[in-house]
Amino acid sequence: MSSYEDVPMETSPRELTQNPLRKIWMPYRNGLPDKHIPQRKVCMTNCPTLIVMVGLPARGKTYISKKLTRYLNWIGVPTKEFNVGQYRRECLKIYKNFEFFRQDNEEGLKIRRQCALTALNDVREYLGVEGGQVAVFDATNTTQERRNTIMKFADQNEYKVLCYISHFQHFISPKCTMFLCVCVGVCVTSCLFSQVFFVESVCEDPNVIAENIVQVKLGSPDYTDCNTEEAIEDFMKRIKCYENSYQPLDEVVDRALSYIKIMDVGRRYLVNRVQDHIQSRIVYYLMNIHITPRSIYLCRHGESDLNMKGRIGGDSGLTSRGKEFAQCLNHFIQEQNIRDLKVWTSQMKRTIQTAEALSMPYEQWKALNEIDAGVCEDMSYEEIQDHYPQEFALRDQDKYRYRYPKGESYEDLVQRLEPVIMELERQENVLVVCHQAVMRCLLAYFLDKSADELPYLKCPLHSVLKLTPVAYGCKVESIFLNVEAVNTHRDKPENVNISRLAKEALFTVPAHQ
Amino acid sequence: MSSYEDVPMETSPRELTQNPLRKIWMPYRNGLPDKHIPQRKVCMTNCPTLIVMVGLPARGKTYISKKLTRYLNWIGVPTKEFNVGQYRRECLKIYKNFEFFRQDNEEGLKIRRQCALTALNDVREYLGVEGGQVAVFDATNTTQERRNTIMKFADQNEYKVLCYISHFQHFISPKCTMFLCVCVGVCVTSCLFSQVFFVESVCEDPNVIAENIVQVKLGSPDYTDCNTEEAIEDFMKRIKCYENSYQPLDEVVDRALSYIKIMDVGRRYLVNRVQDHIQSRIVYYLMNIHITPRSIYLCRHGESDLNMKGRIGGDSGLTSRGKEFAQCLNHFIQEQNIRDLKVWTSQMKRTIQTAEALSMPYEQWKALNEIDAGVCEDMSYEEIQDHYPQEFALRDQDKYRYRYPKGESYEDLVQRLEPVIMELERQENVLVVCHQAVMRCLLAYFLDKSADELPYLKCPLHSVLKLTPVAYGCKVESIFLNVEAVNTHRDKPENVNISRLAKEALFTVPAHQ
Repeated sequence: MSSYEDVPMETSPRELTQNPLRKIWMPYRNGLPDKHIPQRKVCMTNCPTLIVMVGLPARGKTYISKKLTRYLNWIGVPTKEFNVGQYRRECLKIYKNFEFFRQDNEEGLKIRRQCALTALNDVREYLGVEGGQVAVFDATNTTQERRNTIMKFADQNEYKVLCYISHFQHFISPKCTMFLCVCVGVCVTSCLFSQVFFVESVCEDPNVIAENIVQVKLGSPDYTDCNTEEAIEDFMKRIKCYENSYQPLDEVVDRALSYIKIMDVGRRYLVNRVQDHIQSRIVYYLMNIHITPRSIYLCRHGESDLNMKGRIGGDSGLTSRGKEFAQCLNHFIQEQNIRDLKVWTSQMKRTIQTAEALSMPYEQWKALNEIDAGVCEDMSYEEIQDHYPQEFALRDQDKYRYRYPKGESYEDLVQRLEPVIMELERQENVLVVCHQAVMRCLLAYFLDKSADELPYLKCPLHSVLKLTPVAYGCKVESIFLNVEAVNTHRDKPENVNISRLAKEALFTVPAHQ
Repeated sequence: MSSYEDVPMETSPRELTQNPLRKIWMPYRNGLPDKHIPQRKVCMTNCPTLIVMVGLPARGKTYISKKLTRYLNWIGVPTKEFNVGQYRRECLKIYKNFEFFRQDNEEGLKIRRQCALTALNDVREYLGVEGGQVAVFDATNTTQERRNTIMKFADQNEYKVLCYISHFQHFISPKCTMFLCVCVGVCVTSCLFSQVFFVESVCEDPNVIAENIVQVKLGSPDYTDCNTEEAIEDFMKRIKCYENSYQPLDEVVDRALSYIKIMDVGRRYLVNRVQDHIQSRIVYYLMNIHITPRSIYLCRHGESDLNMKGRIGGDSGLTSRGKEFAQCLNHFIQEQNIRDLKVWTSQMKRTIQTAEALSMPYEQWKALNEIDAGVCEDMSYEEIQDHYPQEFALRDQDKYRYRYPKGESYEDLVQRLEPVIMELERQENVLVVCHQAVMRCLLAYFLDKSADELPYLKCPLHSVLKLTPVAYGCKVESIFLNVEAVNTHRDKPENVNISRLAKEALFTVPAHQ
């Protein structure tokens, strides 16, 4: 019982009030948000995590760092990568050649160590002050000594994690949302240490290494002033500088560490001492990604009857123009001549009708259904403004976090779409026939868009986006299939106050029947 | 284009009709469900999977087999375990002692090989004829030779996977649902081979082995007629029989196989060549389970205003009896004196109000919200029968698969709750304050209940279920906290025909205001 000793046992329950933006029930007392009960134990899931990359140059460390960072931010975990190479380039404006990286280059060693420490200081700032949840420390970290330094750094940093919840600010600390749920009552949790998780990439396949160098190293600022052969030669020598001192994570020596060792670009994995929820999800994600070339095609259903009428939600069928688009989509897909294409739809009539034109099988995902507009389903924006002017304004104030009464927010949608993203990562060529809000969420993942940009991404009807992974990012091609359709994109209006006039609220509503 | 050569390119799209039970849009032509477009390529996700356990006796193989089978069945993948020990006991009614397992016991070897083959034949029947999707082959399989036999068996079995979809039968082959989505248009997919995935458990900790023997081996039919010491001694000798010939999965020799090697009860994992969606999910699951003793407490919110009125869904607050239950729950939890208890609620007012009485922090999960009754939200059963008599009858016909118009089915709910189950597996002591349908789904997972039993599991208000893992199952204690509440359990009525009388439909509705 000792852990509750100073909490009054028989207090009457606090009252609840619903956060108007996110529709989350929050305790209050005397009309004010109530103080929370401090949690005394260390709350593992809320502990900041330091991810430490390990591996020789050209093993995909930066690729993994960037991709993982993008994924974690998308699922709602504030994450930032710290690339020590960048620090080095900032500190030392001009890169001459590989000799800088030689183990006997004392000046070089000193600068590199200093850059690593500067990066770690920024990590401390990010996790301890700026509200970051995960920091990805992207460097070779190929020696026990360097990894010990990092462990010591983590041990020395005690983070006070403040989870501030207020229904007045319509704001919940991202640290509290824990990706799947909202913590209530956790006010100050003290993390004695940040959790450290090592991600090592081991690869001896010379083709993979050569491909990596061509894909990403030749474009590096280090090699702007030399030709391809010179750059490749220099980079191979840079790798050599690390090889002699490289100490891979060891099953015996490093048995106390938490890590994943990725071998041969994902053919094999060694996973040691996964500590918490976030590490478990990171491992799952890393085990599902691959680098086989492929393209993902995203589009919406053909124009629907409700699109024409300027109404949101519902489960209507296609207009004749919508059906024409479906036929054109079929031609387009045939022309692309895509190997083993998979087609996914939602479970709504309009996406299934679109896929029916494709003369190939498809799979229906409930998770791909359009955002649930709750009480606003089937309504026009004019009607929403008319019936729920306050709701309409709140949505404009924070479209990502706003949840429709009895419906969903974009934030909810991202959580619902996570298994779709995971399976997209696993698959090769896929065509996803979905909906405006859903397509925005998927696109934001691939293009690394923030929660603020996401709900305003342009995903017009009758256009296909072809996404092809290149280097650290994604090439995007937008193909309009030349069938007219109504515009369904509503920009954020200038005035988002609850007291605005109807005219101001409806200023950006696109034309419709 | 060759793969579409015999598919007419410009057929007009088929019409869609909604399956009345599951509310899934299905193609039809001339009033009949349409023929599907045959898919010519091998459909990986629909290939039957043979999971082969590997490891010395008392390494938790049967524990893992049973647990994994339970999980896969719960998420909708028809799975069955085949325990070769059971076959041996059936074949050889009386077990004398360890000498049966000696490597020089030719008679024993012959019987054991025969049992393995009989089990494999049953596997073939299950995957090829009975509609099974995953078979778990639970035996030691400690030699390369035995594993080669199994690989050959799998290679020799070509499965024709029939995915039959009809909106008349209100039935979709479980093979088609693929746990996350519904396949349409995939009629006959030919799996050349069943996928084989090895799961090896390696453990040298004598305490863990001893604990395993005490927990599960002493209760085995093999040892009904001897005392504890004798049984332990004999079992240790049985282990010895396997040790000399044990060939663990080898990184080099077995590099072409797909497997997970679980080391030291989940401290470390080696994962090799994960081939598809189901293997990836199996790996994720196996990496999240643990055997640390703990209890999971399940209960519903306190009685709500809508409970009192006999109405379903909605987001009402607690009655005075509901609040009294919340206080009693607080006492009960304090008395239990539970180490590091986590409390989870849904995002609905009634579970949060209940948790507010607990003087400890809690986390709100949207995934724990009650089943969405769509157009029937806030209605009494009488009103549902009045407004939607056909819907009401369909629900009684197949309560698990029935989806409310614009709402959810129990089947949907299980998919939504999968991340909750995964996190429950990861955690230790947890109290989940949830809802009737949600609690049924969670309980069905822990107690291995079928989809038919699940929607009728008894989860009364104001009772706590304490679940404690023991041996291969779960001990259940039901604790009524002695606060009266309305009954909300409606049994399946005898007459489920659409043409039934209102009186027949409402026969099992519990009394309410």
